[in-house]
Amino acid sequence: MEFGLIEAIRARTGAGRRDVVLGIGDDAALLDVPAGQQLVACTDTLVEGVHFLRGTAPEDLGWKSLAVNLSDLAAMGAQPAWAMLALTLPAADADFVEGFATGFAELARARDVALVGGDTTQGPLTITVTALGCVPHGAALTRAGARIGHDVFVTGTLGDAAGALRKMLVRDDVPAALRARLDRPEPRVRAGLALRSLASACIDVSDGLAADLGHACTASGVGAELELGALPLSADLCAAFDGETCRGFALAGGDDYELCFTAPESSADAILAACANVNLRVTRIGRVVAGSGVRVLDAAGRVVDVPHAGWEHFAP
Amino acid sequence: MEFGLIEAIRARTGAGRRDVVLGIGDDAALLDVPAGQQLVACTDTLVEGVHFLRGTAPEDLGWKSLAVNLSDLAAMGAQPAWAMLALTLPAADADFVEGFATGFAELARARDVALVGGDTTQGPLTITVTALGCVPHGAALTRAGARIGHDVFVTGTLGDAAGALRKMLVRDDVPAALRARLDRPEPRVRAGLALRSLASACIDVSDGLAADLGHACTASGVGAELELGALPLSADLCAAFDGETCRGFALAGGDDYELCFTAPESSADAILAACANVNLRVTRIGRVVAGSGVRVLDAAGRVVDVPHAGWEHFAP
Repeated sequence: MEFGLIEAIRARTGAGRRDVVLGIGDDAALLDVPAGQQLVACTDTLVEGVHFLRGTAPEDLGWKSLAVNLSDLAAMGAQPAWAMLALTLPAADADFVEGFATGFAELARARDVALVGGDTTQGPLTITVTALGCVPHGAALTRAGARIGHDVFVTGTLGDAAGALRKMLVRDDVPAALRARLDRPEPRVRAGLALRSLASACIDVSDGLAADLGHACTASGVGAELELGALPLSADLCAAFDGETCRGFALAGGDDYELCFTAPESSADAILAACANVNLRVTRIGRVVAGSGVRVLDAAGRVVDVPHAGWEHFAP
Repeated sequence: MEFGLIEAIRARTGAGRRDVVLGIGDDAALLDVPAGQQLVACTDTLVEGVHFLRGTAPEDLGWKSLAVNLSDLAAMGAQPAWAMLALTLPAADADFVEGFATGFAELARARDVALVGGDTTQGPLTITVTALGCVPHGAALTRAGARIGHDVFVTGTLGDAAGALRKMLVRDDVPAALRARLDRPEPRVRAGLALRSLASACIDVSDGLAADLGHACTASGVGAELELGALPLSADLCAAFDGETCRGFALAGGDDYELCFTAPESSADAILAACANVNLRVTRIGRVVAGSGVRVLDAAGRVVDVPHAGWEHFAP
């Protein structure tokens, strides 16, 4: 089954990249990885009713399906280059295809990503994107480099997407700024590039800060302590919910797509400068400690419970 | 949702490849593309009820979801290296996961492919595999190099998978050899490698010979004439169906995963030797002509209708 989707995206993304020797239209794409660079590859699936609500605008799905993958590349310090798209659709739906192509292409153009392959099939709405990028040999950020005494940082603000989702689920008005965080996440690619030589470990926040930082701690063989009062909250989130709810979203809400990373204290000034340079807020939120797991401390140093562990999908 | 699938496959595929700097377990995989090589990338989705019948053994699905992608790499003359798997499953089903992992890992091991990423989600059964491989700079086979006067070849035999599917759909006994062609296709990777310097254009037969050769003709700006009597048919297929039905399957049945390719007459001997060297039958089935499209000629030189254009999915 062919919906014209791949062609529609190609038409909207222009001539593409010079490192695409052969793009869509052959059995496979043929790509030039620059000399001295390593390939970085990730894949993520979005399923209707699990990762997004039925009725989500196709433009937003197109954007987000690429964004969540570019966010993974960002967390590796990689420069995104190419993407492949597998879309399963219940039926040919010209409006959906048009909208999806528009949203996907909008982000692809903005980040200079070429769509180089794809497959459209008939079935229940499911979107799988594979993103490919490059990083200079040995320069990739991983989850495994956090060391005791390092600081923990996070970019941007946390909990906005979870706040939007909560408002939608209770059928309340959703502030536009929160909704944009849920529907149109901005992958922190430039920050990831800037942090390559500065961060000791890095992960993107997709399942929730506590859960994702926990993954990095496990990979690094350390623990972490977070300061509840230090979590960066947006003015929009604070205007929509009480403080405790906001902090709960910040700790455990999903879909933030910020970068959480660790670094030695000596890098702090350079980190602030690097993030300022890409116009992105960055906040020190805790430190790496011996042991395992993530503890959250209030102003008095008491341990606070994380509301729930990680992103609870809004599954049927 | 995590089914343990990715871990189960990793456990079955062993230590993996030395060019996997970082595999499963970080935000993305980190891979070393050898110097002087280009990256080859493809993705394909299998949906229950569209690409395979409900009730297909999970072992076979695991194998086939990788095989169809390796077949695309083979058609480019690429050496498969890495794969990523996105599996959407209705519910945690330990038997399914175990079976799927076994089949996927069996082919991955046999072809030295490392699973380097994946995503398991809850939803209607859908499998998307992305395969990555490498080819020396400039050596890739494409669909676009067929020239007037070149011969048309195909590897192996055609129509076996379509014969198996027909038997299943009419609830007849399915000869084991035909069933194996449908459920466990062998990607023609070694043939693809051997044909790099010999073939002028190459495509894998997934939608049906006439349809796929038609794609190569379009990409090359030429037409092709096939000799009906030359189509290679297996003894198993001929034992199960009359000759006309067999030839119909060979022309228009899908899921063959043979390589169809063109080459100048001067390469014929080398092609026979190369395929013999990888223990694969190869047959000259026609020639490239001026014009466009694929015509099929009987022994008297009369044009024969292709039964139907391409693989009709057995959709609900």
